[in-house]
Amino acid sequence: MGLSIGVVGATGAVGRKMIEILKERNLPVDSLRAFASQRSAGEKLDFKGQEITVELLTEEVMKDKFDYLLFSAGGGVSEKYAPIAAAAGNIVIDNSSQWRMTEGIPLVVPEVNPHTLKGYKGIIANPNCSTIQMMVALAPLHRRYGIKKIVVATYQAVSGSGHKAIVELESQLKDEAYPNQVYPKRIAGNCIPHIDVFNENGFTKEELKMVYETQKILEDNTIVVNATTVRIPVVYGHSESIYLEFKEAPQVAEVKQILENAPGVVVVDAPETNGYPTPLEIANTDDTYVGRIRKDLFDPTALSLWVVADNLRKGAATNAVQIIEVMEGMK
Amino acid sequence: MGLSIGVVGATGAVGRKMIEILKERNLPVDSLRAFASQRSAGEKLDFKGQEITVELLTEEVMKDKFDYLLFSAGGGVSEKYAPIAAAAGNIVIDNSSQWRMTEGIPLVVPEVNPHTLKGYKGIIANPNCSTIQMMVALAPLHRRYGIKKIVVATYQAVSGSGHKAIVELESQLKDEAYPNQVYPKRIAGNCIPHIDVFNENGFTKEELKMVYETQKILEDNTIVVNATTVRIPVVYGHSESIYLEFKEAPQVAEVKQILENAPGVVVVDAPETNGYPTPLEIANTDDTYVGRIRKDLFDPTALSLWVVADNLRKGAATNAVQIIEVMEGMK
Repeated sequence: MGLSIGVVGATGAVGRKMIEILKERNLPVDSLRAFASQRSAGEKLDFKGQEITVELLTEEVMKDKFDYLLFSAGGGVSEKYAPIAAAAGNIVIDNSSQWRMTEGIPLVVPEVNPHTLKGYKGIIANPNCSTIQMMVALAPLHRRYGIKKIVVATYQAVSGSGHKAIVELESQLKDEAYPNQVYPKRIAGNCIPHIDVFNENGFTKEELKMVYETQKILEDNTIVVNATTVRIPVVYGHSESIYLEFKEAPQVAEVKQILENAPGVVVVDAPETNGYPTPLEIANTDDTYVGRIRKDLFDPTALSLWVVADNLRKGAATNAVQIIEVMEGMK
Repeated sequence: MGLSIGVVGATGAVGRKMIEILKERNLPVDSLRAFASQRSAGEKLDFKGQEITVELLTEEVMKDKFDYLLFSAGGGVSEKYAPIAAAAGNIVIDNSSQWRMTEGIPLVVPEVNPHTLKGYKGIIANPNCSTIQMMVALAPLHRRYGIKKIVVATYQAVSGSGHKAIVELESQLKDEAYPNQVYPKRIAGNCIPHIDVFNENGFTKEELKMVYETQKILEDNTIVVNATTVRIPVVYGHSESIYLEFKEAPQVAEVKQILENAPGVVVVDAPETNGYPTPLEIANTDDTYVGRIRKDLFDPTALSLWVVADNLRKGAATNAVQIIEVMEGMK
């Protein structure tokens, strides 16, 4: 009667987080299977007191029956195996960027566009971590005032680059000589305006994801987005400085009210008592936190915000598990 | 025949850096006197092999004859003592925010508005660290294309809060239990969108400095600035993600050429070889570094930049010493 779920890339930072969140939430999971490459197959994982042996990912096992397959093993694995699993009738929720911009594939933030899941079977894309938290905060404001322009600068945690990057930061903080392996430059005591690869237009792929995923999720190609994505020496939690221009002038009191009532949003905005979110304070939670809400000094249609969320949870694993919850709720 | 210079606040992070830079540069300093409060008076400093005893700051000593007095002891000290020194015929270069917005007081970035120093005597204001580096990079572009709007998000080093903040960051990195004394929240492994105090309009004073100092330095009150200033766990070097809208559409090749020829600017912009500036790489230098130069994807008049400089040097001490150099060059 319960759900059968498979996790592909189960031993990575996000895969492990997916299993952790499946444990925490109230989903009735009857069967959990874990898949990984040759390197990790055979490892043991715990799921609610049960020992799970990580299986080797093959085309054959993807044809087995699952209610949901959660993928987080990189674009190449998703490109190859997700269509096989979907062709076998499985619902795939893919955390890579592989299918996000493909027409017909829903790109889903459950608080924002759950309607795209209605009656859908096949591959579903989980958006980029930086995009998800921005969408949770901005979608309710877009509905009320109509967003024309977004200028965003990010402050991104190293856990977004996987477990190795956490080791790199922590090792460099202890040891001056520890080499740069994950990042092109030393991340300890530094900040690096370079996430994912550079495109010819001078933007990084991470920045372009924030542009085009936003347009797709908000279903509005007239929204203009300018992003600068930056890695900083924080372990968990991405922060975003967001400047917005709307069609209609927003009022701060109403903006706060809208956000306080918005699903998945927690407003932390009391400057007089240092009330604003920081990544260290909100790590290991599932909400998106918004503070520093203020009108621009010159343009009555412009507003600034500071948005923080746990990049491995809401920015990846939690969002994927919430997609299952929404689909189960629609049955 | 050489210069007599006094440094007020000589034992602070910026005061020490001022003395260091006076040593490095080719200024013919004959006499250096150092002043501080009761707490630090009597301390010994080295200046070119000569031992300097820090003198107690009093109204009387400010009436002595100096060619230049460099102040970096906080707004209260500048408010009280700078007018006394100026009334006695001394030129005061003040690093606090006390006099920056006062009409008739030049607010000077030597590469940008040296003309305001012509024939001037009295108090001269050194701009805010974040403003200085932004002005060095943007003024030449403003002259060519006319800036309409600036949206900036900063990544600021803890040394901007003085020596105690460096100790706080380094201690917290080693010791989970080390308390927050300088900052309202833990800075190690975190980022804090709160620099200086909050204004009623929701912006911090640091953010408002970037707005109004920019307008004053560029002598154009029609320039619209929206700033978010954020402290990150970096020791030396502020970084800035800057989005610009111009009156006239810029071309990237020309922008690079303008910046390469601009005084005090070093262009580091070769994404294919990880060529972009980071604070760790440029710390302890005097230039302002610009990278990530790219046109907006949608608005032909918009451009993004990444600007990094050493906040204690170009952002404070070097800029002040360069003001002396410009004034000496005008004689």
